[in-house]
Order: sequence, then structure tokens, then C-alpha cells
Amino acid sequence: MKIETGSITAPQGFAAAGVACGLKKNNNRDLALIVSEVPATAVGVFTRNVVKGHSLQRTMETIRSGLASAVVINSGNANACVGQAGYQDAETMAARVAAELGCPVEQVMTGSTGVIGKRLDMEAVHRGIVEAAANLASSEAAGNQAEQAIMTTDLVPKECVVRIELDGYPVVVAGMAKGSGMIHPNMATMIGIITTDCAVDHDVLQAMLKQTTGQTFNRVSVDGDTSVCDMVVALANGRSGAAKITDQNSVAGQVLQEAITMVSTYLSRLIAQDGEGATKLIEVQCQGAATADDAYQIVLAVGKSPLVKTAIFGEDANWGRILTAAGYSGAHFDPDLCDIYLGDLKVCENGTALLFDEAVAKQILQQKEVLIRIQLREGHAFDRLWTCDFSYDYVKINGSYRT
Amino acid sequence: MKIETGSITAPQGFAAAGVACGLKKNNNRDLALIVSEVPATAVGVFTRNVVKGHSLQRTMETIRSGLASAVVINSGNANACVGQAGYQDAETMAARVAAELGCPVEQVMTGSTGVIGKRLDMEAVHRGIVEAAANLASSEAAGNQAEQAIMTTDLVPKECVVRIELDGYPVVVAGMAKGSGMIHPNMATMIGIITTDCAVDHDVLQAMLKQTTGQTFNRVSVDGDTSVCDMVVALANGRSGAAKITDQNSVAGQVLQEAITMVSTYLSRLIAQDGEGATKLIEVQCQGAATADDAYQIVLAVGKSPLVKTAIFGEDANWGRILTAAGYSGAHFDPDLCDIYLGDLKVCENGTALLFDEAVAKQILQQKEVLIRIQLREGHAFDRLWTCDFSYDYVKINGSYRT
Repeated sequence: MKIETGSITAPQGFAAAGVACGLKKNNNRDLALIVSEVPATAVGVFTRNVVKGHSLQRTMETIRSGLASAVVINSGNANACVGQAGYQDAETMAARVAAELGCPVEQVMTGSTGVIGKRLDMEAVHRGIVEAAANLASSEAAGNQAEQAIMTTDLVPKECVVRIELDGYPVVVAGMAKGSGMIHPNMATMIGIITTDCAVDHDVLQAMLKQTTGQTFNRVSVDGDTSVCDMVVALANGRSGAAKITDQNSVAGQVLQEAITMVSTYLSRLIAQDGEGATKLIEVQCQGAATADDAYQIVLAVGKSPLVKTAIFGEDANWGRILTAAGYSGAHFDPDLCDIYLGDLKVCENGTALLFDEAVAKQILQQKEVLIRIQLREGHAFDRLWTCDFSYDYVKINGSYRT
Repeated sequence: MKIETGSITAPQGFAAAGVACGLKKNNNRDLALIVSEVPATAVGVFTRNVVKGHSLQRTMETIRSGLASAVVINSGNANACVGQAGYQDAETMAARVAAELGCPVEQVMTGSTGVIGKRLDMEAVHRGIVEAAANLASSEAAGNQAEQAIMTTDLVPKECVVRIELDGYPVVVAGMAKGSGMIHPNMATMIGIITTDCAVDHDVLQAMLKQTTGQTFNRVSVDGDTSVCDMVVALANGRSGAAKITDQNSVAGQVLQEAITMVSTYLSRLIAQDGEGATKLIEVQCQGAATADDAYQIVLAVGKSPLVKTAIFGEDANWGRILTAAGYSGAHFDPDLCDIYLGDLKVCENGTALLFDEAVAKQILQQKEVLIRIQLREGHAFDRLWTCDFSYDYVKINGSYRT
């Protein structure tokens, strides 16, 4: 099982399109449509922000039916905080897609990402939907265009494919996602879509997505802000021919779970790597915590610390900030037992500075990927989080986002 | 009662000195000594970080005696995470001061601020203590030098004085503090010292300092990081002649409490204003919360959001980020009841965008002080926090702090 290139149209029975309808000022693609040729089992996980975008709230409602034929997502506008009109706009958007595709409106999931507090330009959205429906294709290129159409400050489109075999049938799991600011566990300005031609029982797919999200999309932090539009949805349309998975713990269930996790891990790392202004991907690991929650609190505090993130940007082995962040994380541990590593270089042992070779540290910090490892020696719990460094460009991008 | 200029030597019976002994690379002042001519009632509040600096830990111990004659603080080195030697160095530092002043070693409080994980250069410290003791003076200039000697990345020294009258005696409350990065409630790379010539019962002074700190020093956030060296100590030496305050709720007690709060508020605002790379002071207020904790969670989340802070830096009225941060703060509220103001300009009503004049918003955001006000209409709880914007310079300062 390995990550391959490919878009969300790789599983059988999926088509996509991505068009420019004028919601983005720069005329880039801004409306994506992903369609399954038969109603697919559909599940999702959604932002825990009290404030929620209107398009997302609509999807949280409609997904209860458990079936979806299409996902329509616009970028350039979050369709959030505009009052009752925002719900109507989301419904109108879905109705227009349903009319084009000839499917029930409740089988159309909606998503929006971009600026908060502005009404959607519904004329542009209508135009985009008509054009996208006319251009639906199962090609890899069509999937690429859909990926581009959900990007906001992302620099690169994010996609991957994993191929497995179930019952002797080839089965494909594919994913696409966008970041890249307002990214934090629970969740972020993040939208992820996973498609598969596997057949899966609804509740099993929901359980799989939830488990995977906890280990992957909810372990990414770019800036500690969680947005109002985040969602990851999974569509399973059964077109591979393999028998339906009805038990998460069956052999087939475990293989599918692994494939979904592999796709989600890959996309999560891409999101951190492409964080706003990022020059480096940082993986923060906490080992030997007394409890899972302690391990989580520590990777969270270290991964969101602006001081740690600017030090890594500056390639400065200032590990005191790592220990400091662990110290205020709320986790229980004895600092006098704590070791810290940058890559394979131990820089702190038993809470005390080690004399390490600054040149070796510099070499480690000059890499595009930096691993920070904290060993607590309190127990056996482990957690991991991906983040990025904090650069001048983050400030630049976010100082003038609306203009 | 009003804020005046003046240093911590303004109350009777206090002297100070600030010298350069070589701990800072730039030959700036780096060792401060503050002395009371009689043992003063001494109380303190300290970082809640699990990891604590050695000089600070020593003070947490010695302050239990309730009396102090001197405070010695070095900058340029945090004396943290260097193992058992760090405790010995702090004790040696105190012993040297005690020898110079002829006071018991347990009446000398120690503090250190700067880089973590490096042994203190004790030869430099000794030199500095001898020089500081020889230069002790009650002049305002001597107090200024002590303020300079505790600065790290601070751009301006921080001091103020409030004069009150108790029993017909003039009484002075003075304060000094340093920021300016790793600043966050509970507490920060912050050191604050309050001196007064009032006589106060130990437990009353402790209660006053705790109450004040909760509303002031613990309501400042620069970057969400809390350090291992934070402390605020108060010394009351009784030299004014006014009767000893033994009840916090007496008239005299309330006057003193107000003076201490006024000094602490002023210093807290200065710390936020002088935050690393800051171009603006931001005050975040939450009104109408159901509970005090909800109000606190909201000002905390909004005040530490890098997205809010970069938007204010860019003078962009991107209030969606304020509502978003409130939404993920953990506070309970109905977003559909929430109003948001920038200064006096209402930009969001009932969770919905208002059409506001961008030129007016720009004018408000161009000021050196920006007030963000969130009205929840859920109850009557209020909280407030000071922070600063997030600029290129924050990244620059923290990308190469050790070099």
C-alpha cells in the first residue's frame, strides 16, 4: 500500500470539474463540483467552532440522510455570518446543482471557503455551476481543476491516491484537500474530500473517518485558529464491485481504514507544509507521556507556539522554548525527567541543557522537514502533530487578506 | 489618584542600581538591585509553568518568610534548565548580595530573565553585584537604571508612580516591569516589582497582589507563550509613617488596592504596547457573557489569535476573524446574538455583517490603540485583555533570539 499521484476521480464512478466563475478577484478557479454516478454513502466531520458557515451547516443537516451524489464547493467567500440569506444561498446553490444533475437536492453537499461576512454573488455561482456541470469528466485533469478551485491561500493543490485490493477487486481511495491558514485541530480552514469506489456501510464509514481524522486532519496546526468552514467528507460509491464492508474490524475493513488513514496523513502533512508563509514542515512528537491527553496537550502547545515556530524559521536551536511550551501546556510531567531531540540530536536531557554541536543542529534545522521529539519518561502515551514555521510571509499574507 | 512618572525608588526607604556586568552581549545594563533600608513585607506571584527557572524557584521558597530586604535580577540569561548548578548559582547570587548589604541571605530575592539552558557567568554576576551595591541610590535615575537592567527585548523601560494619602501621611506606590515576548496570562517573560512605603500586613498584601495580578498582569498576551521566569513581587516597608493596613476592606486598604491596581494596569498596558515587534496596543473586551469564565475564554482566544493580530497590523477590518476566534474559544454563546465593535464602529450585529464605512474603520485601525469589543448578550460578565499586533518584526526578533 503506497501513496500515488492521482486525483479524486481515480476511483470508478466519480467525475469532477473546477471552473472560474468570478468569486476570486484574480480569475482563478473558484467553484468545484465532484459527482458520483450513483448515490454514494456519505459521511463527514465538521468544525467544532460555535460559529459555523451557512454552506457547512446545510451539509451537516443533509448528510444525515447518509447519501450524496455531489459536492459543490466555492472558494473566495466563506458564506458565513451573513444571516438567514446565507442559508438560502447555500440551498439555492444545491438546488441548482441538483437541477443540472437530475438528483435530489438533499443529495448535494455544499461547502464554501474564503472571506467571512460577505454575501455570495449568486449570479456568479449559477454561472459556475452550469459550466462545471457541462465540463464534468473522470480524467485526472478534471480532478486537478477541482482541487485548484477550492484553494484559497494554498500555493499547491493537494491530492493523492492509494490503491488496494479487496475480494480480488481493485479498489481505489483518493483524496483532495485545501489549507492553508486558520488551521488548527477541530478543525481548520480546511476542506478535505475522500472518494472511494469501495462499498461501505454508512456507520462503518463514519467511524473510519472519525478515527482517521483524529490522527491526521485534527493533528495539523498552522496558526492555532480554527475556522467556521472546515469539513472533511468521504464518499463511497461501491463501483469497484468488491463486497460491501459492514465491519470495521474485518480484514477488508482494516485494509480500507489503513488506506483512508494513509491518504489523510499525506494530505495533512501537505497542509502543514503549505501553511501560510511556511518554509518548513515541523513534526512534533511526544513520547512517554502518562496519558494520551498529556501527550496531546504537549504536541499542541509546542506546535502552536509562535516562539518555537519563529525559532525554527530562523534555524535557531532554541530548545528552551520547546520545554517552556511543554511546561505551560497543562500536561503533567516532571521536567527533570524530560529529554528533547531535534531530529536525532539530543539537546536536553533530564530537563537540563546538553552541550551539543551547534553546527550539527544547524544542519538539522536547515532541512525542509524538522522533527521535534519530546520524551517525558512518565508512561507510554504518544501523540504527534504537524505544523510549519512562522515567517515574515505569514504576517504579510494575513495583514491584508481581504484586500 | 493618578499615574505619574517616577521610579521604584520614589517610596521612602528604597534605593536601586542597575549596572552592566557583561551578561548581555551588547554591554547594556544587565543586573538590577533594589533594596529597602528596613526589611519589607514581601509577597509575590509566580509563573504557573511546570518548568521554572532556578532563580525564581529560589524566590518562591525564600518569600515564605514574608520579609525581604533586596531583590537582585539579572537579564541576558534565564538561569533555567541547567540542572542543580542553577539552584547553587541563584543561592550564590543571593549570598553575595547579602554579604554586600549585611542582611540575611533569605531576605534576598533572586530573578533571572533571558536565554534558557546556559549557565550563568558567575564571575560577571559577582562583579555586577559589587558595583551595584556601591552605586545604590534613592534617586529617580538610579531606579531608571534598574529598569534598564531587567530589559531583554523591551524597547522602553517601564515605570510609574501613584501617590496617595493615608492617615494624613503621603504614601507612594511605585512599579517597574519588563516584557516583551513570551508574554501570556499565567504569566509571561515578565518581571514586575512594586514598592511602597505603606505598612501592610503580609496576608493582606498577598491578597491585594493576587487580586490585582488577575486583572492586570495576567490579562496581557503578546504571543501566547508563558515563560519559566515570570514573577511579580511587592515590597512594603512602612517608612511612610501611616498606620499598618490589616484589613483589605478597610478604607485605607481599598485606597492602597486601587493604587496598586492603577500601577499594575499602567505597566500591563506598557508591556502589551512594547510587545515584540508591536506597532499597536490592542484592548480586547468581552461584555455580556453568561459567566466570567466565558468572558475570559473569549478575550484570551481573540487576543492571542495570530490572524486577528496580523489583521490589526495590516489595519484590515477583518472582523470575521474576531468572531471566529470567539467561536473556538470554548465559551458558550449564541453567535446570532453577538455584536462586534472596532472602537465605536459596530461591524457585526447579531452575528451578521453590517455594511460599515471602510474608511471609518481604517481611521480607527490606524490609531496606536485599537479597542475590540465583543457584546454577547448572554449575561453580565465582563473581561478585558491587552495584546499587540503581530508584525514582521516579531518574526525577525524571534527567528534569531539566541544569536
